[in-house]
Amino acid sequence: MIIHIDKSDNRRFVYQQIYNELRDIILEKKLSAGDPLPPKRRLASELKVSINSVTNAYEQLLAEGYIYSKERSGYYVEDITQFTGLEQSGPDNRLPKDLKEERVQRESYQYSLSHMSTNLKLFPFKAWIKSEKLAIEHHKDEMSDISHPQGPYMVRETIAKLVSLNRGVVCEPEQVVIGPGTQPLIRQVLDMEEFKNSTVGMENPGYGRMHQLFKDMNLDVLPVSLDRQGLNIDEVKSKKPNVLYITPSHQFPTGKIMTISRRIEILNWAAASGVRYVIEDDYDSEFKYGTDNIPSLQSLDNKTNVIYSGTFSKTLTSSLRISYLVLPPELLRAYRANYSSIIQGSSTLNLFTLHYFIKSGEYDKHLKRMNHYYEKIRSALVKEIKNQYKDRVEITDIPAGLHFIAKFKSGKSYAEVEQKAKAHRLELYTLERFKIDDSPTEEDRISLVIGFAKLQEEEIRPVVDVLKQIV
Amino acid sequence: MIIHIDKSDNRRFVYQQIYNELRDIILEKKLSAGDPLPPKRRLASELKVSINSVTNAYEQLLAEGYIYSKERSGYYVEDITQFTGLEQSGPDNRLPKDLKEERVQRESYQYSLSHMSTNLKLFPFKAWIKSEKLAIEHHKDEMSDISHPQGPYMVRETIAKLVSLNRGVVCEPEQVVIGPGTQPLIRQVLDMEEFKNSTVGMENPGYGRMHQLFKDMNLDVLPVSLDRQGLNIDEVKSKKPNVLYITPSHQFPTGKIMTISRRIEILNWAAASGVRYVIEDDYDSEFKYGTDNIPSLQSLDNKTNVIYSGTFSKTLTSSLRISYLVLPPELLRAYRANYSSIIQGSSTLNLFTLHYFIKSGEYDKHLKRMNHYYEKIRSALVKEIKNQYKDRVEITDIPAGLHFIAKFKSGKSYAEVEQKAKAHRLELYTLERFKIDDSPTEEDRISLVIGFAKLQEEEIRPVVDVLKQIV
Repeated sequence: MIIHIDKSDNRRFVYQQIYNELRDIILEKKLSAGDPLPPKRRLASELKVSINSVTNAYEQLLAEGYIYSKERSGYYVEDITQFTGLEQSGPDNRLPKDLKEERVQRESYQYSLSHMSTNLKLFPFKAWIKSEKLAIEHHKDEMSDISHPQGPYMVRETIAKLVSLNRGVVCEPEQVVIGPGTQPLIRQVLDMEEFKNSTVGMENPGYGRMHQLFKDMNLDVLPVSLDRQGLNIDEVKSKKPNVLYITPSHQFPTGKIMTISRRIEILNWAAASGVRYVIEDDYDSEFKYGTDNIPSLQSLDNKTNVIYSGTFSKTLTSSLRISYLVLPPELLRAYRANYSSIIQGSSTLNLFTLHYFIKSGEYDKHLKRMNHYYEKIRSALVKEIKNQYKDRVEITDIPAGLHFIAKFKSGKSYAEVEQKAKAHRLELYTLERFKIDDSPTEEDRISLVIGFAKLQEEEIRPVVDVLKQIV
Repeated sequence: MIIHIDKSDNRRFVYQQIYNELRDIILEKKLSAGDPLPPKRRLASELKVSINSVTNAYEQLLAEGYIYSKERSGYYVEDITQFTGLEQSGPDNRLPKDLKEERVQRESYQYSLSHMSTNLKLFPFKAWIKSEKLAIEHHKDEMSDISHPQGPYMVRETIAKLVSLNRGVVCEPEQVVIGPGTQPLIRQVLDMEEFKNSTVGMENPGYGRMHQLFKDMNLDVLPVSLDRQGLNIDEVKSKKPNVLYITPSHQFPTGKIMTISRRIEILNWAAASGVRYVIEDDYDSEFKYGTDNIPSLQSLDNKTNVIYSGTFSKTLTSSLRISYLVLPPELLRAYRANYSSIIQGSSTLNLFTLHYFIKSGEYDKHLKRMNHYYEKIRSALVKEIKNQYKDRVEITDIPAGLHFIAKFKSGKSYAEVEQKAKAHRLELYTLERFKIDDSPTEEDRISLVIGFAKLQEEEIRPVVDVLKQIV
């Protein structure tokens, strides 16, 4: 038995070298099942190493099951199973070329008109870290355990209070369910027995990721068109969904605000028959310029048919992954019955930090600051587009949220526009993307979803110039 | 039309008061559809308020759809739908008593022997915050956008390198999928078409939450018993699952380490026929006392049948919600096809922080420190239990992980033990909880899953005293 040891090798300890050598000897069947290993003392003296090194190597082989020991006798080789079929070339375990990633960098864009971004330039990271230190100081113990399936009670209390003040939502902390995103949360709810064989009505155009989610869940999706007042209620009545997924405060992507009448009609519809639920996705209603916020649909609901969905993705950043639902009591009961053993998915370090960030007033301050900043950028961008395009553009100028729709006279196709945007290194999304049926595209018009969150003031003129070359 | 304004009310602006009054007048039908609102100037002078206050109130009513405007004419009341059925007492929207939460506080326990905890007393929060500051400094721009569905490439690179060094896992960053927990990640994988009608073999006793997940997904779960070498391979062969979910490095909850022979047998089984996959949940293998870590099963797999699952829940804290899978190439292809539009669920703020925490060497330092600390607590606790119980206890003393199994001679039932533990304010979990079939309970024996992560050195003697009163 030849064992090579290189004492000058400082990447591997001597015992690791002995272990490796013996392991290979065993796997290559140079020692057979039942063969004894040399006594530790003898091997140590042969290799001129300490007996400890041999002991450590033997212990490791023992732990992994290469050898076994007999008391007062020594160590013996286990009967090791052989790998079968090693000679065949199985599936290659190197990564095929087509799975290699293009390392897409955000920085590869020169400008971004993405509706998905938020602006972190003004984010008070110092205050965030200060809140984090408080979270660490006061909640170390809770953070060493798995949190409540709905999130820590204290944080739910803070969110319940916030959403009651800012959005008129009527709720107790018990009804708040925290999670790492609106989609996984809504998925959990719709996964429950209560929603088996549900048909979901959603706005068309509407939120693409949610549409994808419903399809992934094999739910029947019924596109509902929009009219002057918001969601077309007659279509809801004729298509007969039992769940509605809507964005009444700032329709995504068109930006429409649902009128009070339509809100009441929808609540009446929900209350009229059997188990109907309305999911209100209130994704960016904290941003409202000129007027006050529009009260949430949930605040008008006294029949407990509305599931309110909120998030900190727009007001803070989507990178925190903190969203929440407010469940009506009966759904809360079902939720608890279904999900008592799940682990809540938002980082509780971030959640406790958020608690202190809100409590210290920093959240409100940031919201005010961002409302002011976004309004400045939004109105300047709208003005610049109108200036340059005059009557060749139509802007639905709803002073809310982080995006608006601009419809351009253009002979180009959507595919051309998207391709040109890419060539100009402009991040840009068309309205066409958010259509959830195959209705025909309007001719000679290009509608764009223009997000302005990441735009700097000095970028407004150049970005509109680039836009001009594209549409 | 009587409008009450209280200028001394400093909770609500004057315009808000006007808005509220007018809204109520409209909702109560004191003004009918089509009725004109008073001209702004007149109302302002009647109420002795600024014209701005009236304008703001009208704008808000307009935005919410209570009124409409005609150019050069003024404002008119919309035809507002009435709520139906308000007279009926619908479902109460107050929270029923049974849904109120007992505000269970962790502190209500005097001692904890939970296997789910980690110890944060020695966590280098300062170094964490330092890493977080670097993350903020360098990745602000990326954090303002939605991350790659698998997580930021740079962080996956860091994890791939770490898991290759520490666990021998063979992978490219492309194969790493980050998510807010092992369960949602495994759920995503098993939700794919490739796993339709799967039957899942899992260890019995085994990880309860994962068992619950498989049941929730309506997957057929086949309990497989354990033998001296690990998972009983003959049972696997006769029960014929197509997916195995196992914890080979430190079986949960028994702590057994699967022998090299059994590992090879399992890989041979997986490679033998059709599409078979083995999910290796490597949940706490970073903690190994006395010997080196046991190389992962994935490191032996050259047929790409192993899905490796890792987490930072044990090495750092579960409150971060950072776990990951390493997918074999063909599954990666399927994963990308299925989940291109999902939003990755771990906080990217935490992920970038983790990157710098690992890169700076703090992660390795913490791991070393915790290995040392846990070993001290573990061996002292084992010693104390053996001392006090002598031959009335049998401890499977595997020097790994954050828990061990102790089997006590006891005339008590599991229900009695659990009740008594509660009465003594001791957090304690029995092995019985992790049985996934109805095999009979061993008589006159109580097996406990003893977690020691949260135990302080000075608590060891008192906690064993409490244990004595319980079993």
